[in-house]
Amino acid sequence: MAKTTRRQRSGGRAGNTRGSGSTIDQMPWRIPVNTDRPTEPLTEEGVQAIHGGAMRILEDIGIEILFDDALAIFKEMGCRIDGTNVRIDRDTVMELVAKAPSEFTITPRNPDRKIAIGGKHMVFVNVSSPPNYWDMETGKVPGTREHCANLLKLTQYFNCIHVAGGYPVEPVDVHASVRHLDVLFDKLTLTDKVPHAYSLGKERVEDVMEMVRIAGGLSHEEFEATPRMYTNINSTSPLKHDHLMLDGYMRCVRRGQVTVVTPFTLAGAMAPVTMAGAVAQSLAEGLIAIVLAQYIRPGAPCGIGTFTSNVDMKTGAPAFGTPEYMRATQMTGQMARFYGLPMRSSGVCAANVPDGQAMWETSNSLWAAVQSQSHMVYHAAGWLEGGLIASPEKFIMDCEVLQQIQRYFEPMITATTPDDIALDAIKDVGNDGHFFGIQHTQDRYEHAFYQPFLSDWRNYEGWDLAGGYWTAERANKMFKNIINEFETPAMDVSIREELAEFVTRRKAEGGAPTDF
Amino acid sequence: MAKTTRRQRSGGRAGNTRGSGSTIDQMPWRIPVNTDRPTEPLTEEGVQAIHGGAMRILEDIGIEILFDDALAIFKEMGCRIDGTNVRIDRDTVMELVAKAPSEFTITPRNPDRKIAIGGKHMVFVNVSSPPNYWDMETGKVPGTREHCANLLKLTQYFNCIHVAGGYPVEPVDVHASVRHLDVLFDKLTLTDKVPHAYSLGKERVEDVMEMVRIAGGLSHEEFEATPRMYTNINSTSPLKHDHLMLDGYMRCVRRGQVTVVTPFTLAGAMAPVTMAGAVAQSLAEGLIAIVLAQYIRPGAPCGIGTFTSNVDMKTGAPAFGTPEYMRATQMTGQMARFYGLPMRSSGVCAANVPDGQAMWETSNSLWAAVQSQSHMVYHAAGWLEGGLIASPEKFIMDCEVLQQIQRYFEPMITATTPDDIALDAIKDVGNDGHFFGIQHTQDRYEHAFYQPFLSDWRNYEGWDLAGGYWTAERANKMFKNIINEFETPAMDVSIREELAEFVTRRKAEGGAPTDF
Repeated sequence: MAKTTRRQRSGGRAGNTRGSGSTIDQMPWRIPVNTDRPTEPLTEEGVQAIHGGAMRILEDIGIEILFDDALAIFKEMGCRIDGTNVRIDRDTVMELVAKAPSEFTITPRNPDRKIAIGGKHMVFVNVSSPPNYWDMETGKVPGTREHCANLLKLTQYFNCIHVAGGYPVEPVDVHASVRHLDVLFDKLTLTDKVPHAYSLGKERVEDVMEMVRIAGGLSHEEFEATPRMYTNINSTSPLKHDHLMLDGYMRCVRRGQVTVVTPFTLAGAMAPVTMAGAVAQSLAEGLIAIVLAQYIRPGAPCGIGTFTSNVDMKTGAPAFGTPEYMRATQMTGQMARFYGLPMRSSGVCAANVPDGQAMWETSNSLWAAVQSQSHMVYHAAGWLEGGLIASPEKFIMDCEVLQQIQRYFEPMITATTPDDIALDAIKDVGNDGHFFGIQHTQDRYEHAFYQPFLSDWRNYEGWDLAGGYWTAERANKMFKNIINEFETPAMDVSIREELAEFVTRRKAEGGAPTDF
Repeated sequence: MAKTTRRQRSGGRAGNTRGSGSTIDQMPWRIPVNTDRPTEPLTEEGVQAIHGGAMRILEDIGIEILFDDALAIFKEMGCRIDGTNVRIDRDTVMELVAKAPSEFTITPRNPDRKIAIGGKHMVFVNVSSPPNYWDMETGKVPGTREHCANLLKLTQYFNCIHVAGGYPVEPVDVHASVRHLDVLFDKLTLTDKVPHAYSLGKERVEDVMEMVRIAGGLSHEEFEATPRMYTNINSTSPLKHDHLMLDGYMRCVRRGQVTVVTPFTLAGAMAPVTMAGAVAQSLAEGLIAIVLAQYIRPGAPCGIGTFTSNVDMKTGAPAFGTPEYMRATQMTGQMARFYGLPMRSSGVCAANVPDGQAMWETSNSLWAAVQSQSHMVYHAAGWLEGGLIASPEKFIMDCEVLQQIQRYFEPMITATTPDDIALDAIKDVGNDGHFFGIQHTQDRYEHAFYQPFLSDWRNYEGWDLAGGYWTAERANKMFKNIINEFETPAMDVSIREELAEFVTRRKAEGGAPTDF
C-alpha cells in the first residue's frame, strides 16, 4: 500500500471502515472465531480407514494429470508415471503435506479487510460462478455484467461477507476472452475485499494477478511477499486434474498466492455411492494437488476443499444441504485436521427460489460448516438451484443467517460471571416484577441480543399491516435500496486509471484464449 | 392392552404399523438415536457457576408456591416456608433430584408407538397450544375443532412425529369447560401416539387420565404400572408456580405418569437479560417442581424443559431460534446432564408465515435441540408467530426437516468398512467413467441417500413446468391430500363407545371449572 497515501482518492468514505449505509443496521466487520468443538462422526479407526483409502488411491490407482509441466514435477518427485497416470507413495504425500501451513492470512487492497484462514477462524465468501441470475422481477435469466456488478455491490456491502470470490454470476453478455478483465475491474473497484482468480489457463491468472497487484498499489516484490488473493481449482472427478486448472494453480503457487483445491465428488455419480468412499476419493484428488504445491514452493499457503454431496437417485440430479452432505462435510473436517490443512466447504441448496426449502438446505450446509470447523465457506450467500442461479434476495437472506452464526460465536452469550448469573437482579425483581426496566437490563440491552436486519419479529397483525411481505419480498426491497445507496470503496484515481488502461490494453491484445 | 384382542376393531389398517398412505413416501416409524457429541459452550467452571446460581435462588430467594397441598409437602420436607415463599437447601435439592430416572418409556394405546425418553433418544412432538390457525386459504383465524382434528391427523400421519402433545391448536369454538373432553376424544381416536394432558386443575387431568386409561383398554392398576401419557407444566416466571398447574402436575406424579416442567424465561422480560442468568433462573424454577415430584414419588419419571429465549429489545416482542436461544438450549443441555435429567426443548420461530425466515429460525432451534442432546422436542412441527399460530403447511415443512435429522443420525452414512471406502469401485471406474451404473452403486442406491417428500430437487425448468410452486404452496397441496386419504388408526368399537360415553357423561356434569 506504499503508494496510496500520496494519491488522490475517489469514492467511498474516508477510511472506508464501514460497509453499510443507512438501509440496514448490520454487524461491523469481523473475522468470526468458531470456538465450538467440532462434530466428529468418525472414530479414530474411521479416520484411519478413510486415510488408508485415500492413500491407496494415490499409491495403487493413481490420478490423471493432464498437464506436462505438472507431470515433469511429479516425475522429479519420484512418482510412478504411466502416461498421464501419476501414482505416489504415502510417505511422499505425508512428508509434503506436512509442509503446508495450518494458518495464513490474505491481505487485499484494503488492509482492514485482511482475513485469517485456519485455526478457529471462519470466513464467508459470496456465491460464485452460476451462469444464471434470478430475482423476483426478472425470474431466471442468463447473467449479465450488471447483475454481476450488483452482486459484487452486495458482496462489498455486507460486513459478514469476507471474500469477493469468483464471479457472483457469470456475465454471459461479456465475451469469455475478456470476461475476466471486465469482472475483475468491477470487482477491484466495487469491492476492497480479498479477490479471487479463476485458474482457467495462463492468461487469466496472470492478468488477474497483475490487476490485483495494480489495485493494491504494489510492486511485484510486494505482491509476492505475502498472499493478496487466491484461486480455487476443481479436479475433474473421478481422479483427474486438467491442463487449464493446473496451469493457473501452479502460477498462483509460484507467486505465493493462496490456492484451494476442491474436488466435486457427487456420491453415486463422480464418486462412490458411499459417503466414506466419496470422501476418500475427494481427499486423494485434493491431496495430490497440495503435494504438487508444496513441492513447487514448500510452505505455500493452501487449503483443501470439500464438495461431496449426493445425487437424487431417482433422477440423477445433484442434491445439496442433505444429511449426507452434512456428514461428508463433518468427516472431511476431521480429515483436514488429521492432515493439518485449512478447509473450505460451502453454503448450498437445491431449491430453485429463495423459499423455505432453500433456507433449510442452506441452514443445514452452513451449520455443517460450523460443525466441521470449516475455515472458508464458499457460496455462503446467494446460491440457488444447485449453483445454477445467483439471486440477490437469497444473498440477503443468507447474510441474515451468517450474521446469526457470527453472533452465535460471541463468548458473551455464554459468559457465567456473577454479573451474568445476575442473582442480585433476580432477587430485586423477585416473583412479581419484570426485568425490562431494571438497571441490570438497562445497562446491557443494547448489545444483549442479536438484532436482525431482515427477520420480521413483529406480531402477525403488525406484519400484516405493513404489507404482509414474505421474507423474499422483503429481501427484494432491501436489495434495491442497497444498490441505490451503494458507495464505492475508496481507490486512488491513478490506480483506477492504471487498472482501466491495463484492461484496455489486454482487450486490444485479444484477452485470453477461449478454445477450452 | 389385555382386552383389545377380543374386541371388534374399527378403522385403520390391520396392525396399524404404518402411518402413511400413498401421498408421500415417508420414513418408517423409529425413535431417533442422537449419537453426536453435544455442543458444550460452558466450561466446568461455567456449569458450576450456573448450578451455584440456581442453588442460591432456591436457598436464598425462594420460589412462590401458590398451592397449599404443595406447600404442605415442602414443609414436611423441611424447607423454609414464609407465606407462600419456599426456600430449600441445595443438599435436599440434589438428594431428591438424584432419585429421578435418567431414562424411561411411555407406552400409548398402540404399544408399537412406545417411546423412550432419555439417554441418546430423541422424540419429536407436534405444535401445541396456539390459539390461532393459519393456512394459505384461511389466513390467520381463531382455531376450531376441525383445525385441531386436521392437525391431529398430521400428527398421526407423519412417522417422524412421535408424540401427540397438547392441542395442536386451541379449538376456541369449543367451550373451555369441555374442550379437553372433545379434543382428547379426537386425539385418542385419530392418533395412537403418546398423549398429553394439560395440567389446568384437578378435573382436566383426572378426565384425561381416565380417557387415556379407557383408550388403552387398561385397568386402573395397569394404567398406573407404567407411564402411558405425560403432562407439561410451566412456571409463572419469575419464581412462581401456580395452583392449577401444580395440582394437575401432582396428580400425574401420584399416578405414575410422566411430568415435564418448563419455565418460560424470556431473557430481558421474565428473566435476566443475560443468558446464564436466565438459564439459572429457569433451572431453579424447574428443579423445585422436580424435587416435589421426587418427594411425592421417588423415581417418578420426569424431565426438565427449557424455554429460554430473548426478546426484541426494541419492541419487547419475543424472538425465537436466535443465536441466544441456541446457546441457552445448549447450556441447559449441559446442566440437564449435570443433574442427570432428561431434557425437553422446542422447534420455534418468530416468523408469521412459512417462509424463509420461518425455516432458518426453525432450523436453528432444531439443530440446537440436536446439539444440546434434547430428548423431547416440543412444537417440532407446525409452529409460527412465536407460538400464536399453528399451520399445516409449516407442519409438513418441519416434518421434512425432522426426517432429515433422523436420517442424519443413521450410522450408515458415516460407516467406514472396506465396502464403504469402495476402493474396488473407485478402481473399476477409474478416471473416465461414471459410478451411476456400476454394481457397487446398484446394490446400494435405494437406501444410500435421504429421499425427500416435499423438497423439490428438479432443475428450475422442470420445477417451473410443474407449476413453479414455492415450498409452502407444495405443502398446502400435500396437506389436502393427506387429510383426504387419512385413515383412522384401529380402535375397538367398544372402547370408542366407552370413550364417547365418558365424554357425554362428563359434559352433562359440566366439565371442568373455567374460573381461572
